[in-house]
Amino acid sequence: MKSYLVKELAQVVEGEVVGDSSIVIRGVAGIKEAREGEITFLANPKYESYLETTKASAVIANGNGNIRGSVIKVQNPYLAFLKVVRLFDQGPMEKYPRGIHPTAVIADSAVIGQEVSIGANVVVGERVKVGDRTTILPLACINEDVIIGEDCLIYPQVAIRERSEIGNRVILHSGAVVGSDGFGYAKEGHRHQKIPQIGIVRIEDDVEIGANTTIDRATTGVTLIKRGSKIDNLVQIAHNVVVGENSVLAAQVGVSGSTELGRNVVLAGQAGLVGHIRIGEGAKVGAQGGVTKSVPADTNVSGYPAREHSFARKIYAATTRLPDLLKDFRDLQNRVKALEKGLGSGSSAEDD
Amino acid sequence: MKSYLVKELAQVVEGEVVGDSSIVIRGVAGIKEAREGEITFLANPKYESYLETTKASAVIANGNGNIRGSVIKVQNPYLAFLKVVRLFDQGPMEKYPRGIHPTAVIADSAVIGQEVSIGANVVVGERVKVGDRTTILPLACINEDVIIGEDCLIYPQVAIRERSEIGNRVILHSGAVVGSDGFGYAKEGHRHQKIPQIGIVRIEDDVEIGANTTIDRATTGVTLIKRGSKIDNLVQIAHNVVVGENSVLAAQVGVSGSTELGRNVVLAGQAGLVGHIRIGEGAKVGAQGGVTKSVPADTNVSGYPAREHSFARKIYAATTRLPDLLKDFRDLQNRVKALEKGLGSGSSAEDD
Amino acid sequence: MKSYLVKELAQVVEGEVVGDSSIVIRGVAGIKEAREGEITFLANPKYESYLETTKASAVIANGNGNIRGSVIKVQNPYLAFLKVVRLFDQGPMEKYPRGIHPTAVIADSAVIGQEVSIGANVVVGERVKVGDRTTILPLACINEDVIIGEDCLIYPQVAIRERSEIGNRVILHSGAVVGSDGFGYAKEGHRHQKIPQIGIVRIEDDVEIGANTTIDRATTGVTLIKRGSKIDNLVQIAHNVVVGENSVLAAQVGVSGSTELGRNVVLAGQAGLVGHIRIGEGAKVGAQGGVTKSVPADTNVSGYPAREHSFARKIYAATTRLPDLLKDFRDLQNRVKALEKGLGSGSSAEDD
Repeated sequence: MKSYLVKELAQVVEGEVVGDSSIVIRGVAGIKEAREGEITFLANPKYESYLETTKASAVIANGNGNIRGSVIKVQNPYLAFLKVVRLFDQGPMEKYPRGIHPTAVIADSAVIGQEVSIGANVVVGERVKVGDRTTILPLACINEDVIIGEDCLIYPQVAIRERSEIGNRVILHSGAVVGSDGFGYAKEGHRHQKIPQIGIVRIEDDVEIGANTTIDRATTGVTLIKRGSKIDNLVQIAHNVVVGENSVLAAQVGVSGSTELGRNVVLAGQAGLVGHIRIGEGAKVGAQGGVTKSVPADTNVSGYPAREHSFARKIYAATTRLPDLLKDFRDLQNRVKALEKGLGSGSSAEDD
Repeated sequence: MKSYLVKELAQVVEGEVVGDSSIVIRGVAGIKEAREGEITFLANPKYESYLETTKASAVIANGNGNIRGSVIKVQNPYLAFLKVVRLFDQGPMEKYPRGIHPTAVIADSAVIGQEVSIGANVVVGERVKVGDRTTILPLACINEDVIIGEDCLIYPQVAIRERSEIGNRVILHSGAVVGSDGFGYAKEGHRHQKIPQIGIVRIEDDVEIGANTTIDRATTGVTLIKRGSKIDNLVQIAHNVVVGENSVLAAQVGVSGSTELGRNVVLAGQAGLVGHIRIGEGAKVGAQGGVTKSVPADTNVSGYPAREHSFARKIYAATTRLPDLLKDFRDLQNRVKALEKGLGSGSSAEDD
Repeated sequence: MKSYLVKELAQVVEGEVVGDSSIVIRGVAGIKEAREGEITFLANPKYESYLETTKASAVIANGNGNIRGSVIKVQNPYLAFLKVVRLFDQGPMEKYPRGIHPTAVIADSAVIGQEVSIGANVVVGERVKVGDRTTILPLACINEDVIIGEDCLIYPQVAIRERSEIGNRVILHSGAVVGSDGFGYAKEGHRHQKIPQIGIVRIEDDVEIGANTTIDRATTGVTLIKRGSKIDNLVQIAHNVVVGENSVLAAQVGVSGSTELGRNVVLAGQAGLVGHIRIGEGAKVGAQGGVTKSVPADTNVSGYPAREHSFARKIYAATTRLPDLLKDFRDLQNRVKALEKGLGSGSSAEDD
């Protein structure tokens, strides 16, 4: 069990201690759950009332209001807390024993790097390469000719299909499928002839892929997840999609075939994109947004079909007035009819 | 093979037999598929016509109209049928042999209860506790320090990540992932720094989790699925979510981080909820509803953005009249313009 | 490594060679990625500009414009390319060694056909039947009494629950779950009593099921995927659903219980269907469409709630004019009020 003095933690986060700096901290926790011997943080003012009841022995905050125990004062408590969490969180190198579990099935032609950890019942196919310090947890399946970089973390039940290429420091969560066939058929009458999907998936460095997310291999060429992108659970990435650097895809998003995302794109939960379009750098799609055409850079869109966000909001707000509008319109029609009668208007317009 | 006389089944469901009560029943089936020797039920009047053609040897119904074979008359045929189905359905204790399959990999420090069944190639990590009579089917993976209660049923390919806590009589379907990392990053420029997710998932008694559903562990603290809740397939539960007692989440629902559901909440298929909101006790969200703010107790909402259900219906109905309204409005504008001209109105309004 | 002369490929696709017909082709690729020694195709005029820069040694096209290297002229370049891809793509019989891996756990009562391939750590339950030439890849789980036909391809991490029936030439992608329990409960007060799901799943010949897709077993009777249907990733098929022949379901679609699709139905990505409805033969549902009632044959619907497609488009187009309409309406009301005043109208209507 690791432990740090409050003053040691203050040094790490470059903060100032108010109160006893020699208290021993053995863990980190949220303000509601923290117990004695733990440190917590206050970033969201909504949680300020918990300061009086928290059992934490120290708090990271940007003030020192009504706080029991020691305070580490910093500009940005959330970032400081993140640094402290990392001190207490073991990486895979510490958590999982190095070496190959005797029940793992590793093809003779596989090339396994230094200080690798391969868990129970893992299956590694022919000619697979696994980089140094990578951790593959139990029951994962790595098919033929897959290349995995260094310092990767592959969780239980992951499936990586043949010839996929995985960069360094990539995290694949349980149940993720990398390199499944793209969904492509040629029609012959009403029957669907499968188009072999002979391309691959390439995942660049520092990408994280969520649990039960599926990333299909390209028809030809490559389905590409670029450096630093983060993809949440249950996301569908179709064949030949490109996800730009540092993009963020929330849970249950679906991206159809050959669509390209620029860098720093954000797709909120359950958003869906049709195929063969381009989402410009820095663009954002709102939750459940249905994107039917390309989106320019630095543009927010939302709704179905997705439109520029402030316009979409205006439309949704306007729809709430629609039931009244229909009534008022009928009323206005009648008043106009009355005016027409009063004028002896020759208009032949008839409403009912 | 189990078998019962019609009169024995009538006793179980507290019903009255009309016809031969000594017929032997060897199975249960729907009214369309039932064969001789089986019992079926009629609850939905839509299926009444099948009474004439069903091959079932007995029918559970609340009348005895035009029925071939024996009838068991009850108030609520569906509930009665459910009781009969349970008679014929073996539980996991009968279906799966007790004991640990020789290919299972069980850590020495794991504590396994009485009459447990652990299937082929299952992996159980260090310090895991498995309660009495629990069944773990082949190829499931239980990571370090997981606690599983009594009488649980864990299907093939399930992954339970470290430190998750599972209550009694919990059912986890194939491919479900419990305890994957929450999706949390701190931005440094355009790069995303992973926030270690050091909390856990706790699943209380009598919960059922569907196939390929993902439940993320908390950032700190706990993602909590309370007693008696039922979650369907392909559902996403983000970090720090709380699902209240006896709630029902249909397939492909997504609940974002830190959102709390009260008890008896119902989320219909593909509904999506943003983070940090509260859904009150007994509230219901319609299929594909997109919930952007908290919902009071006992309130039905639907649509995107979700609004009170009867209002949402009114809006959707009104939108169908919108194309005509635009035409009628243009017409009314012209009539007003004509009136203005006729009056020699001094109005400066111009429409085209 | 296979190789063909350009003239041999021309024969296969019944095309005409322009240029050197004796070039050796060793692979196929998209026009952007192709390298020397490979053949590519031009079907989409958007890609015509790549003809000048492609490194491919031959191109399948329906003209012979500005093309470096040899051309095979055909009517339909895409279908011709498909035939060539198949020449180069090995089937599972060639890719995966026949025989049973020594780590596979096969019940004694299982009946395994000729020339079957069963991979490492696969688990096959009691009384399972596996047809000739079927390939089951590592870490798949086949439960008791499952019947699998001939020439099937079952990818790693698939779970097939007890008594499911799989036809011939069926492809199941990684993480797919076939035969999980349907989502059915009877309410007793606020508690949900599980209804045993005693039916099965039947998948007919030539069906393909995507990665992490879930197909629930019937309550009683059968959940049925008919011949030739193609289902993409992360799709939810609930209990007692029927999917008609040659239907196509794109990624993340959800079909609720007992709904029936006719043949040749197309459901686009993220579409959701309520239960107990019927989608007629040849009907299409647009992406994210929310279908709340039955759809007649040969009808396209889209939007939420789904309506006939051209009407839905008209509505969505009209909503974009709604913010302006509200403004114009208020203006028109004022003009009518002015007219009423001018006329000394006796109307008692009041708008503000």
